[in-house]
Amino acid sequence: MSAKTNPGNFFEDFRLGQTLVHATPRTLSEGDVALYTALYGPRFALQSADSFARSLGLPRAPIDDLLVFHTVFGKSVPDISLNAVANLGYAEGRFLKPVYPGATLSAVSEVIGLKENSNRQTGVVYVRTDGFDDTGDKVLSYVRWVMVRKRDPNAAVPEAHVPKTAAAVSPESLIAPAAGFARFDCAASGSPHLWDDYEPGEKIDHVDGMTVEESDHMLATRLYQNTAKVHFNQFSEAKGRFGRRLIYGGHVISLARALSFNGLANAVSIAAINGGRHVNPLFAGDTVFAWSEVLDKAELRKDCGALRLRLIATKNLPCAEFPDKNGEGAFPENVILDFDYWAILPRTP
Amino acid sequence: MSAKTNPGNFFEDFRLGQTLVHATPRTLSEGDVALYTALYGPRFALQSADSFARSLGLPRAPIDDLLVFHTVFGKSVPDISLNAVANLGYAEGRFLKPVYPGATLSAVSEVIGLKENSNRQTGVVYVRTDGFDDTGDKVLSYVRWVMVRKRDPNAAVPEAHVPKTAAAVSPESLIAPAAGFARFDCAASGSPHLWDDYEPGEKIDHVDGMTVEESDHMLATRLYQNTAKVHFNQFSEAKGRFGRRLIYGGHVISLARALSFNGLANAVSIAAINGGRHVNPLFAGDTVFAWSEVLDKAELRKDCGALRLRLIATKNLPCAEFPDKNGEGAFPENVILDFDYWAILPRTP
Amino acid sequence: MSAKTNPGNFFEDFRLGQTLVHATPRTLSEGDVALYTALYGPRFALQSADSFARSLGLPRAPIDDLLVFHTVFGKSVPDISLNAVANLGYAEGRFLKPVYPGATLSAVSEVIGLKENSNRQTGVVYVRTDGFDDTGDKVLSYVRWVMVRKRDPNAAVPEAHVPKTAAAVSPESLIAPAAGFARFDCAASGSPHLWDDYEPGEKIDHVDGMTVEESDHMLATRLYQNTAKVHFNQFSEAKGRFGRRLIYGGHVISLARALSFNGLANAVSIAAINGGRHVNPLFAGDTVFAWSEVLDKAELRKDCGALRLRLIATKNLPCAEFPDKNGEGAFPENVILDFDYWAILPRTP
Repeated sequence: MSAKTNPGNFFEDFRLGQTLVHATPRTLSEGDVALYTALYGPRFALQSADSFARSLGLPRAPIDDLLVFHTVFGKSVPDISLNAVANLGYAEGRFLKPVYPGATLSAVSEVIGLKENSNRQTGVVYVRTDGFDDTGDKVLSYVRWVMVRKRDPNAAVPEAHVPKTAAAVSPESLIAPAAGFARFDCAASGSPHLWDDYEPGEKIDHVDGMTVEESDHMLATRLYQNTAKVHFNQFSEAKGRFGRRLIYGGHVISLARALSFNGLANAVSIAAINGGRHVNPLFAGDTVFAWSEVLDKAELRKDCGALRLRLIATKNLPCAEFPDKNGEGAFPENVILDFDYWAILPRTP
Repeated sequence: MSAKTNPGNFFEDFRLGQTLVHATPRTLSEGDVALYTALYGPRFALQSADSFARSLGLPRAPIDDLLVFHTVFGKSVPDISLNAVANLGYAEGRFLKPVYPGATLSAVSEVIGLKENSNRQTGVVYVRTDGFDDTGDKVLSYVRWVMVRKRDPNAAVPEAHVPKTAAAVSPESLIAPAAGFARFDCAASGSPHLWDDYEPGEKIDHVDGMTVEESDHMLATRLYQNTAKVHFNQFSEAKGRFGRRLIYGGHVISLARALSFNGLANAVSIAAINGGRHVNPLFAGDTVFAWSEVLDKAELRKDCGALRLRLIATKNLPCAEFPDKNGEGAFPENVILDFDYWAILPRTP
Repeated sequence: MSAKTNPGNFFEDFRLGQTLVHATPRTLSEGDVALYTALYGPRFALQSADSFARSLGLPRAPIDDLLVFHTVFGKSVPDISLNAVANLGYAEGRFLKPVYPGATLSAVSEVIGLKENSNRQTGVVYVRTDGFDDTGDKVLSYVRWVMVRKRDPNAAVPEAHVPKTAAAVSPESLIAPAAGFARFDCAASGSPHLWDDYEPGEKIDHVDGMTVEESDHMLATRLYQNTAKVHFNQFSEAKGRFGRRLIYGGHVISLARALSFNGLANAVSIAAINGGRHVNPLFAGDTVFAWSEVLDKAELRKDCGALRLRLIATKNLPCAEFPDKNGEGAFPENVILDFDYWAILPRTP
């Protein structure tokens, strides 16, 4: 391998407290927004229509929160997870500022935890990744942990340190869009059901299914400039763990979120990611379904509140019976995602 | 099913005269335009080049009329055709105002006819759908009829009412773009053949063929926020009528229209849809061909006229012999579309 | 075939010195840029981020040079290569002016050489194609030669004339972007390796592989309004030379160039195409790999220089061992592209 080629970092290359400035700032445009729509078919009114956003006092339709997330995430891959075995989890994700077309995003990560696995072949790297726009404002911050290979199983590694992360982002720290939700038009948004209409414990089957093709997920992941090898290279994956390309976990989150419109049409933005796990892999040809559970709710302002939602995605399994983990916490093989987030909904005026 | 999930309307839910305000206004951008180009490869100069449009006095390149149509159509699906068995026909479609990037489209439908089928399992719903931009101007209006399932075969239904629709939009009511077609540059547009050069009865084989992939038509249909289940869900369609995903009929119209450039390069905009029928289904892997017949022609202004064109699309069947319905009006199984529209062409100066 | 359908030019239709004004000017937008990113995943900082481009004094991120090339090339296809058997080579390509979103490109070709093949079935057409923006400035100029079928093997043809083309564009004639490369940020660009760090003879394996799907290459080629039949029509190609659709050679160039980021991240723009040959065909399902060789280097300014690079792409063959032609100049069947270009890199301050 040329000394000029990026081999990625291996587990023993990381140091607690290390800061990694990720490459390739990326301007998000109306073109990226259109592609995001074509890839997932989201229909949330706030992101779909400039006029709708303006009617609430925003300058124009903000970019989908998950497109911001995937862009920032993508930047971190060459430094954090090029040699990853598995993306293990997310926590403490907060969306801090709406992003509009024309903004340029960049990303920085700090290593906040390291723990070698007992087999000494791999270790878990915990990072806090921050996304910034070109005014220097932080637009997104989240923690993720990922299992990374060691270059040399015998390499010395630092003492294990596992960071404490919050089980959920506290409602007090959620930032809702500075929109006048009192003027929210439910005929335009597609549902009369507002924050007040949902209660903890409620489960919603999102009914619809979406089949994924190889071309779709690769277009998406290239759009995010995410370079993880397992998504793109059938030649090498044919000999790998699954015999085929693995779909980027974030693609599943976006598909499930788009499906969740049917039942949660007014959950117009994501304020926080409390946690998330990709519990089984997704492959091209599979059909994704989703259901949601309301875990909690919090008043934020007179005109809006937050719902803490668990979004479960499955493959090749409709969700009328809400497939879930069993008593021992194990998921059936058709469940692929367990994602816990705070969404913002308008309140009944 | 959750009370918050949209089950769509069933035949017995519709009432004559009922108005349905469709959800999710949608801002069309340069991103949507680029995707439309990537999906179909249209080459009409007016929509391809801002400088060409400006040379005719327009502010910039207008959005392809069919992208406007698909966007408005898509909005109507969750209310009108989520439980559709088949999209039966179109009539009285008129494009009323050019749409430019940045415009936000919304849609409203009125139920103008209802007729239960004799099997009592289904009925035909006739709607007039109007598309508006964010200044409140109507940009498009068309009638379509669709066969919709009944929730309960025994449900009472209103008396049958079948609306009269015009066999064709009258040339007097066509609206041509406010472009100075006298300055139309045929070297740039790709053909010397203007309105004057076409005569009723003329048939044109568009020669080229385009193979469709699953990823293509799903990208398109998600871009249009069209939620009809049959296009996306291989898991359920595998057990359905065809064993596979059915391609959105509008995708066929756009493919055939793009192919028609080869022979009709100066038919730069669509003024009206006189009628249209999807006479056989299209599936991924099929190759689409097309031919056109000039049905009629009408002078509109000194600088432009309209051609009434029949656009026939086939699958896996080149059109050198102009495949068509037989004497009894039945189409061979390789014919998939019979579309009747008015196109605007510059006149010989 | 209708007299209004473009049959393309056959070998005997071309005349030495003939000028062909190609149809359909095309405005490139942010939407095209986003699609280009989704199709290939390029990560060069200059094209990815407006803020990065502005930090160097440019008005915003320029459009990828190869997207400009493909757009201009696509315009020439209906007139030059609709009846082509093979695209044989490129020479003397120069990028003359950065292109930004909003520019409209058009193209003109001059026939600079003609040579019938001894079988009299085909001949080689040499053209110089120039691309212009809507201010009339030339943005790109290149020579290509292509083997074109004769309509009639017995048709008389002009005397053979093979133009002389330069083996490489001279460094003196290269135009580097008017960017202040002294302010180039290597943390943002993704690599510390600048012009000074590369030496002739150096070989770089770009490591990563990218599998191509039918949908991808057809989206790309339609985006470029390239109408060459062999890319789109499985119905006819099933009976053709390869039994399947052939992927546009320019798609390979863009894939290889995007892969070359890993090792050449600071080769931020292409100044010239010295030559290029598609030495074997690429088909959907194949995985593309690439390696580069530094052929030469030239100082251009105090802040930047040019590297002459050979970019070799393979299918289903990783490039750790730098697969290349043998002593007789023959390429193994897994090598698909041999592309020779000048890239601009910042110099060490």
